[in-house]
Amino acid sequence: MCKKEILIIGGSAAGITAAITARRYYSDARITIIRKEKEVLIPCGIPYIFGTLGSAEEDIIADTVLSKNNIELIIDEVISINKGNRIVKTADGKTLKYDKMILATGSSPSIPPIPGSDIENVFPIKKEINYIKKILSRVNVSKNVLIIGGGFIGLEFADELNKKKNLNVTVIELLPYCLLLACDDEFCKKVEKALIDRGINLLTERKSKAILGDKKVEAVELENGQRINADLVILCTGIHPNINLALNAGLMVDRRKGIVVNDFMMTSDNNIFAAGDCTQKRCYLSGAPIVMGLASIGSTQARIAGANLFGVRRRMECAVGIFSTRFGELAVGSAGLTQRAAEGNNIDVIISQAIAPDKHPGYLPETCETGVKLIFERDTGLLIGGQVYGGASVGELINFIGSLIQTKKRADEICTFQIGTHPLLTASPMAYQIINASQVALTDLRKVRL
Amino acid sequence: MCKKEILIIGGSAAGITAAITARRYYSDARITIIRKEKEVLIPCGIPYIFGTLGSAEEDIIADTVLSKNNIELIIDEVISINKGNRIVKTADGKTLKYDKMILATGSSPSIPPIPGSDIENVFPIKKEINYIKKILSRVNVSKNVLIIGGGFIGLEFADELNKKKNLNVTVIELLPYCLLLACDDEFCKKVEKALIDRGINLLTERKSKAILGDKKVEAVELENGQRINADLVILCTGIHPNINLALNAGLMVDRRKGIVVNDFMMTSDNNIFAAGDCTQKRCYLSGAPIVMGLASIGSTQARIAGANLFGVRRRMECAVGIFSTRFGELAVGSAGLTQRAAEGNNIDVIISQAIAPDKHPGYLPETCETGVKLIFERDTGLLIGGQVYGGASVGELINFIGSLIQTKKRADEICTFQIGTHPLLTASPMAYQIINASQVALTDLRKVRL
Repeated sequence: MCKKEILIIGGSAAGITAAITARRYYSDARITIIRKEKEVLIPCGIPYIFGTLGSAEEDIIADTVLSKNNIELIIDEVISINKGNRIVKTADGKTLKYDKMILATGSSPSIPPIPGSDIENVFPIKKEINYIKKILSRVNVSKNVLIIGGGFIGLEFADELNKKKNLNVTVIELLPYCLLLACDDEFCKKVEKALIDRGINLLTERKSKAILGDKKVEAVELENGQRINADLVILCTGIHPNINLALNAGLMVDRRKGIVVNDFMMTSDNNIFAAGDCTQKRCYLSGAPIVMGLASIGSTQARIAGANLFGVRRRMECAVGIFSTRFGELAVGSAGLTQRAAEGNNIDVIISQAIAPDKHPGYLPETCETGVKLIFERDTGLLIGGQVYGGASVGELINFIGSLIQTKKRADEICTFQIGTHPLLTASPMAYQIINASQVALTDLRKVRL
Repeated sequence: MCKKEILIIGGSAAGITAAITARRYYSDARITIIRKEKEVLIPCGIPYIFGTLGSAEEDIIADTVLSKNNIELIIDEVISINKGNRIVKTADGKTLKYDKMILATGSSPSIPPIPGSDIENVFPIKKEINYIKKILSRVNVSKNVLIIGGGFIGLEFADELNKKKNLNVTVIELLPYCLLLACDDEFCKKVEKALIDRGINLLTERKSKAILGDKKVEAVELENGQRINADLVILCTGIHPNINLALNAGLMVDRRKGIVVNDFMMTSDNNIFAAGDCTQKRCYLSGAPIVMGLASIGSTQARIAGANLFGVRRRMECAVGIFSTRFGELAVGSAGLTQRAAEGNNIDVIISQAIAPDKHPGYLPETCETGVKLIFERDTGLLIGGQVYGGASVGELINFIGSLIQTKKRADEICTFQIGTHPLLTASPMAYQIINASQVALTDLRKVRL
């Protein structure tokens, strides 16, 4: 019997996870990853190369897992897919056959429509190691760095760059607050305060009009006429999915939001699956198509695609979207819809909050105030969103909230949920934030004072 | 209309939480807490008084929440309940009437049947502030402290006492490993190693035969003939529920495991509810009666009792049991059944593990190896237990696992669960331990190497 051929295009988080998952289920198949880059960067780690890590070599995904599991890695670029004959052609002139394919072609940085975006020393964040090294070398001789875009990546870049001595870091954000697409105003304000306290300049509600400079960038001009000097500009203005290969192959594609996949990660062609940043996601509440570039979601999709190639095993209805980040001592996380997004979708919500120290008693050293905001759908009582600020436990606390959203829990169920608490590791059992915020949502705030 | 009278006996975590919850639902009721102690200690914080905190005053539950919510606090002791007439009598000679009552009488330390347990300087851990202060003053003039019982509390005491200079701390544990009732062998070994590295003496599989001393304790003699010098002995050999009041009132009581309550926290009398350490718990898997003294479970029960007094609102079927603790850098957590307990109950299980750094890349500072072990029921694929070791995020990571147990998730559902990941806060999306351990449980370990 001829071995089944599984071909995976792209070898970052989604591609590798898809390959490993496929190996778990299809032990006899030939599995090949084909990707352009010899080495790939851990995508979420890229900002940390510029401060905490100090070099790109410390942010590389180890490929040893591939050889250990008999997954072939080809460094080459697929230039076309013939889905009728199930073959691909590569830039090196190779022709490869496949029985099943997974597209994990990722995303590229969106370049904002600002004149001067192509001037020397203006850098969108491409996930390529030599390109990142180039930015790093330029950073090392810069004085004024300007970051356009105050989302997660922009702020992480700002905070890491700010760790370099003598570097003046400024963020320009179009919206009224930084992080506004992921968090509600009060959480954004907390983050902004932390960043300002750390010495970063934030210019919110400012639109960049032009990037100025002769041989290389010299300044950015804002629409209000303000001119900000910069010898290095980093563009963190979102991503767009890499869809060209899929589009040219005749697959169904949402040009702005990505390759269309069903719940099983199958594209419009039975033999081609897709996972990661290159795919369109759907909002878990409305099913509406959305863009969501998260390695965590990409990995989930990859686990589904890899398992389903020759038979249906797994499915994912929609994307919840769970984020977290940290700036110094302050960590924030967000899962599901924000209050702003929910109300923007005309969902009648109940909002509740609970704040407590992350240890108990609060006299313990390194205690950190930790606040939880929960967003419930009034009609059903279902938890549809949550946000957290606090310290080191925020990453898993928001995952706990994300699990309550995914398992469709109501406030009355959560408020009697069983939890574990410990003086050194969590809030006290009486004050545990997720529980208390759920209780507050159920009863009139005026009846009890905490 | 006459105001409804709600009387709560006991005012620690369960009593106060029950009172506050009752206030949320019964804004017009008179709510009274009656308790023996003027001030109550945060129970789980008691070991930390002996090291990190340094004084009992820093481990007190604030009563301000009571007056703010119009909850009367009486310092007195209820000596009898007449459930026919709905009145109680107190030590001070008062008679109080109630419409609904909540028993939150807590637990007391179990004294092991060892001769000499009543010698001077031998202390079971009573949750009384002056008593704890007395132990603290004795600790300050001691050289050799011996702790009998290597469960959570015993080890926490050992680690905190060990922070005092010139104090030699030894733990005697009957079972083959410390923590064995909460964790499987490999987790116990990790904790033991950490404690030994921190300079604590552990004597496992040793039975204390007698506590020796003339005016005050001088040594403990083991069954193997070994004699360990000690000028202070702390007994951490479990708890028993405070049931006498309930028993004398004619309520249904399991003498060893506590006051019997139904899913709604109602005792055998319609007008009397109970919550916390004084109640019998039931194992979430078998329904079998168990003892489980956890403030977190007690608070959950209190939220149920407080809401149900005059009408059914909430229920809790059984107790999952979620623990966590930390010794220096090493934190451990456990939820649900251990492998040992499951196999002891003749449950056919699938065991799986995943280890990864708690940050990504692992080059980031303060990265801590974090391991997750999951225990699935083979027959159904349901998650029935989990254990974690790692750093600061362990408390919420085990809560996340606890939520997956409570919401009855199977391995195939968990392995495509959506999570959030961040370099500074969690494992990488490809390596996220709960997901990968669930995947490992589903597929043959030999097929893939990580």
